[in-house]
Amino acid sequence: MAASAPIGIFDSGVGGLTVVAAVRRLLPNEAIVYLGDTARVPYGSKSPDVVRRYALNAARFLVERGAKMVVVACNTASAHALEAVRNALTCPVIGVIEPGAMLAANHGTPHRIGVIGTEGTVQSGSYQRALAALTPSAFVVGQACPLLVPLAEEGLVDHAATRLLTAEYLAPLVAAKIDTLVLGCTHYPLLRDVIAEVVGPEVRIIDSATAVAEAVARQLDALHLLAAGRSAPDRFFATDTGERFRRVGGAFLGTPIDHVEHVDL
Amino acid sequence: MAASAPIGIFDSGVGGLTVVAAVRRLLPNEAIVYLGDTARVPYGSKSPDVVRRYALNAARFLVERGAKMVVVACNTASAHALEAVRNALTCPVIGVIEPGAMLAANHGTPHRIGVIGTEGTVQSGSYQRALAALTPSAFVVGQACPLLVPLAEEGLVDHAATRLLTAEYLAPLVAAKIDTLVLGCTHYPLLRDVIAEVVGPEVRIIDSATAVAEAVARQLDALHLLAAGRSAPDRFFATDTGERFRRVGGAFLGTPIDHVEHVDL
Repeated sequence: MAASAPIGIFDSGVGGLTVVAAVRRLLPNEAIVYLGDTARVPYGSKSPDVVRRYALNAARFLVERGAKMVVVACNTASAHALEAVRNALTCPVIGVIEPGAMLAANHGTPHRIGVIGTEGTVQSGSYQRALAALTPSAFVVGQACPLLVPLAEEGLVDHAATRLLTAEYLAPLVAAKIDTLVLGCTHYPLLRDVIAEVVGPEVRIIDSATAVAEAVARQLDALHLLAAGRSAPDRFFATDTGERFRRVGGAFLGTPIDHVEHVDL
Repeated sequence: MAASAPIGIFDSGVGGLTVVAAVRRLLPNEAIVYLGDTARVPYGSKSPDVVRRYALNAARFLVERGAKMVVVACNTASAHALEAVRNALTCPVIGVIEPGAMLAANHGTPHRIGVIGTEGTVQSGSYQRALAALTPSAFVVGQACPLLVPLAEEGLVDHAATRLLTAEYLAPLVAAKIDTLVLGCTHYPLLRDVIAEVVGPEVRIIDSATAVAEAVARQLDALHLLAAGRSAPDRFFATDTGERFRRVGGAFLGTPIDHVEHVDL
């Protein structure tokens, strides 16, 4: 595997672009191939075996495109399919749950950790297990927030309805007096301000995107696969043919997306 | 084709169950085979060719199951794929847009008609064209309400956030002084109370589910395909393996769903 090969990153849709943005900031030399499975989005409310099938499709596509590493930049897919993807590929595979859990566990001495995510992610118990292994004495409470993904996708990041629903979802975590909150969905960094307002300034908010970028850097370095210089521009693929990915994706990436290539999976 | 064969009905997910409920009320002798494409739901934000591909898969599945007629019980699929499904099948095919538009056009003398639906349905202009053909003098205004589907699916039918977003979506239609409002999405009947509250009692609300059931009855009668008596219990298929369809579907159908069969499309 050549160090000049791109990093492959996939998500069910645009959410994983928050991970792309973090990787770009930390590793500007790396070329990225991104796939958004927009024809089958969302994964969060679908069952583990359906998500596993889709995640394997997506990961194999990235390998066919020459990826030297695959990042499962979707919490639901990381929860249901990380083992399956690792078993199916020969290149290194990084999910978003372990880096986020490590950051939460190492960040000061958290004793009361809240995790928010999709129905699939929270029900899988993946964060709960990862945190229990890393910081056994911590109290961990999970909360599914199914409407936050569509609200973020619609750009309602500063809307009264978003504040209302966020306050309602987070009420049990506030009542449980959490000191740390893990954003267990790649869509949630867009709602960070509203979430911070609800939980208050004493609660540390863990955005796993940065943690994932650091895990990518560590692993590429360990494998001597860090790119010496940029070999190619980033490429963006989507399984839907529409303009929506380009239009909505810019907000998640933080810069406009010029061109999206279509692929049937 | 035997009159005792079932009516095939499909939707991207649970929304089409509001059409099943209307067909059951009007035609209690008919057996129904329903397919919810829950592994790929929603259709509303996806592009026309992706929706067309999925709709053809679903319609062919129902024909393989012996359907004597196929009802495209999804407005987005009716908008993008009705012609393609009609061309691909030899049995009669009924969509939800024309019956709804006919009901709106015939209901008194509406002059100012609002249509709400998904992004795909409204952007397609299908209702606007159908209404222009039926009642050329009417003023027609469409409004996409992308968040109403997830709100209905989450059961937030009487929630402050739903009221807030509904009022916001409908504000341009209220300002346009509509006298008729077409619920151009099979999810919206669940939100009928909130919608009625926003538009006020003077606005007639057109729920196409009943109109579709009537169109089904008329066409089966014309083809001498009305069942003389119930030949089999209704069957429900879903492309996702999970429990969600059964759990959420009951609210749309109005009665619990005992058993859902899984199918890979």
